[in-house]
Amino acid sequence: MTAADRRARMALTCVMDGGDPAVAELVVQVGAEAAWAGVREGALGEQAARRAATLSPPEDEWLQHAGVRFVVPGDEEWAAGADDLRFANTIQRRGGEPLGLWLRGPGHLAGLMARSVAVVGSRAATAYGSGVAADLAAEVAEAGVTVVSGGAFGIDAAAHRGALAAGGRTVGVVANGVDVGYPAGNTGLFEVLAREHLIVSELPPGAHPTRVRFLARNRLIAALSRGTVVVEAALRSGARNTAGWALECQRPLMAVPGPVYSAASVAPHLMIRNGQASLVTRGAEVLELIADAGESLLPLAQGPRRVTDDLDPSLLSVFEAVPSRRRAMAGDIALAAGVAVPRCLAALAALDDLGLVEGDERGWLAVPAGHRVRVP
Amino acid sequence: MTAADRRARMALTCVMDGGDPAVAELVVQVGAEAAWAGVREGALGEQAARRAATLSPPEDEWLQHAGVRFVVPGDEEWAAGADDLRFANTIQRRGGEPLGLWLRGPGHLAGLMARSVAVVGSRAATAYGSGVAADLAAEVAEAGVTVVSGGAFGIDAAAHRGALAAGGRTVGVVANGVDVGYPAGNTGLFEVLAREHLIVSELPPGAHPTRVRFLARNRLIAALSRGTVVVEAALRSGARNTAGWALECQRPLMAVPGPVYSAASVAPHLMIRNGQASLVTRGAEVLELIADAGESLLPLAQGPRRVTDDLDPSLLSVFEAVPSRRRAMAGDIALAAGVAVPRCLAALAALDDLGLVEGDERGWLAVPAGHRVRVP
Repeated sequence: MTAADRRARMALTCVMDGGDPAVAELVVQVGAEAAWAGVREGALGEQAARRAATLSPPEDEWLQHAGVRFVVPGDEEWAAGADDLRFANTIQRRGGEPLGLWLRGPGHLAGLMARSVAVVGSRAATAYGSGVAADLAAEVAEAGVTVVSGGAFGIDAAAHRGALAAGGRTVGVVANGVDVGYPAGNTGLFEVLAREHLIVSELPPGAHPTRVRFLARNRLIAALSRGTVVVEAALRSGARNTAGWALECQRPLMAVPGPVYSAASVAPHLMIRNGQASLVTRGAEVLELIADAGESLLPLAQGPRRVTDDLDPSLLSVFEAVPSRRRAMAGDIALAAGVAVPRCLAALAALDDLGLVEGDERGWLAVPAGHRVRVP
Repeated sequence: MTAADRRARMALTCVMDGGDPAVAELVVQVGAEAAWAGVREGALGEQAARRAATLSPPEDEWLQHAGVRFVVPGDEEWAAGADDLRFANTIQRRGGEPLGLWLRGPGHLAGLMARSVAVVGSRAATAYGSGVAADLAAEVAEAGVTVVSGGAFGIDAAAHRGALAAGGRTVGVVANGVDVGYPAGNTGLFEVLAREHLIVSELPPGAHPTRVRFLARNRLIAALSRGTVVVEAALRSGARNTAGWALECQRPLMAVPGPVYSAASVAPHLMIRNGQASLVTRGAEVLELIADAGESLLPLAQGPRRVTDDLDPSLLSVFEAVPSRRRAMAGDIALAAGVAVPRCLAALAALDDLGLVEGDERGWLAVPAGHRVRVP
């Protein structure tokens, strides 16, 4: 991409909101430079033209001083996931792919997103939800997976902090300029992200969030990440909007269950119930769903194996009838088990071979679980 | 079925455990009378023959006095679901269909099972699990659905009690004689079931539970009910065994989520996660899954609708820029929304038509949500 093309994209992000499909389409049709010239000449309306005439992207010097950079498709640092937004469109709404991304922080966007998962949810999270978000984020971060979230109060902040506490990597994708700390209550978090990790935005430095920009940002979180986990969310929420974009982008969508009486878990339960989201309870289960082949599959959870598990029912009946304290004669065991004595003796011999019972002239006794020799 | 056939089945249940596939197969091959004669002659071993020679079913007089009856396939009261056990067999274990069922209580088996759901789970239930089991059972019972369970401590007892508290119907399927109250701690519950509802068993009066009998009983709970809900269960548990039989019987399997830190919710979460069970959080969701067509489908949960939901993004941008406290002129709104003034005026007119904004010579104002006229 030429320097002029890059400059044109930068300029376009300054006059139009992120996720404006008309701008994205114009750039696809005629290229960024011609699109920018077109916007200045009124191709997207008089107002856009006036804004284009007055607004201009920050100077390189300012950017360098502020530690802000702008990446475009084709750049080594560009995260390919963003390109999926060209075709990932909901029935109600076209997203459009980002023309470029404003970045702040030492993190390498493409490297961070190669193994990443978005952890999102309610601002009004419960203590349970915040705890799960932090634990789950810490667990995936420990495995080297980047935790992506929106820097909001509640679940978002818990997820970022969980990743940070585990010494892992985390990225904030925001609905404002990468130099604007919103919400102000999370300023300390944004400072850490900018100093040691990465803040990403479609909007130019100085931009403030609006509802439209939050929705556009949500699509970016979903597209940049390899999967999205919703921890707690109301039926109507930004997290559900992000979840919808994850599905449109064909990314695995996951949701965390909670108490059925908790309003904050209604949306996760609904998404699991209707088959949109996979149920996850911990980081290892998230890794399983976003990992490459051969990387993170969990062994089947089946609880402790018991040696009696694979016993034939007829052997099990006899085994259950063998006392564990006082020895019993085969005849009594046969009676208790309700089987014929010869069948009982054969079963006792088989159980003896398995190390489950032991017999002598005084009778038969069950071998306590702790004393059994493990059978291959 | 002849009286002799019925008597032969009754006798067979007295000498063999329920769910013994060899007995079920013998009855299918040669009929109950010949099977009974065969057992007495040693077809299933010397021990069975000896038991057959000494044990006999209770006399009619005793049964009448004890309020116990025996039903067989073909009886008007027979629950067809039990017949599915002929072909519902796990890879590890054949179940075999019951030869007959011992009943105690005024309830009509077939009538009760026509609309029924099993609610099962841990003996060592948490307060959360017991609460959900009782609430969920009460809700389905209020809708006229029979709550089936095993009469055990924990989830089973909570489910029975929830149904009773709602004035609904409930059936206990036990691993012992219908006249044996096991566990003794639930004696009061069994008395209510016997007096006003129904207790069901494959085993004759007087029989005591064994591990093999519990497993056989679980298959009966699953087969008799139209669906099974697991509320809380450990990875290895009777409830998971029942769940396995529900799947083998092609009945809907449901599981209740809980806190991810709760060991009691590990098995429900696993069953939901691996696609065996549908997630349910309340009775209405259970009814939806076990109901006949046209009976109980729930409206899509979507939270409160907002009039702005269906707004075109360009209208939404303008709407978001209209202040709600102090009036603003169209030019300022256009600037804030980043659109051309003519487009802004058109948008304001459209928003005015929708009752979302109102304007006069002093400017435009957003109409507060509470004051908006509902748009059809």
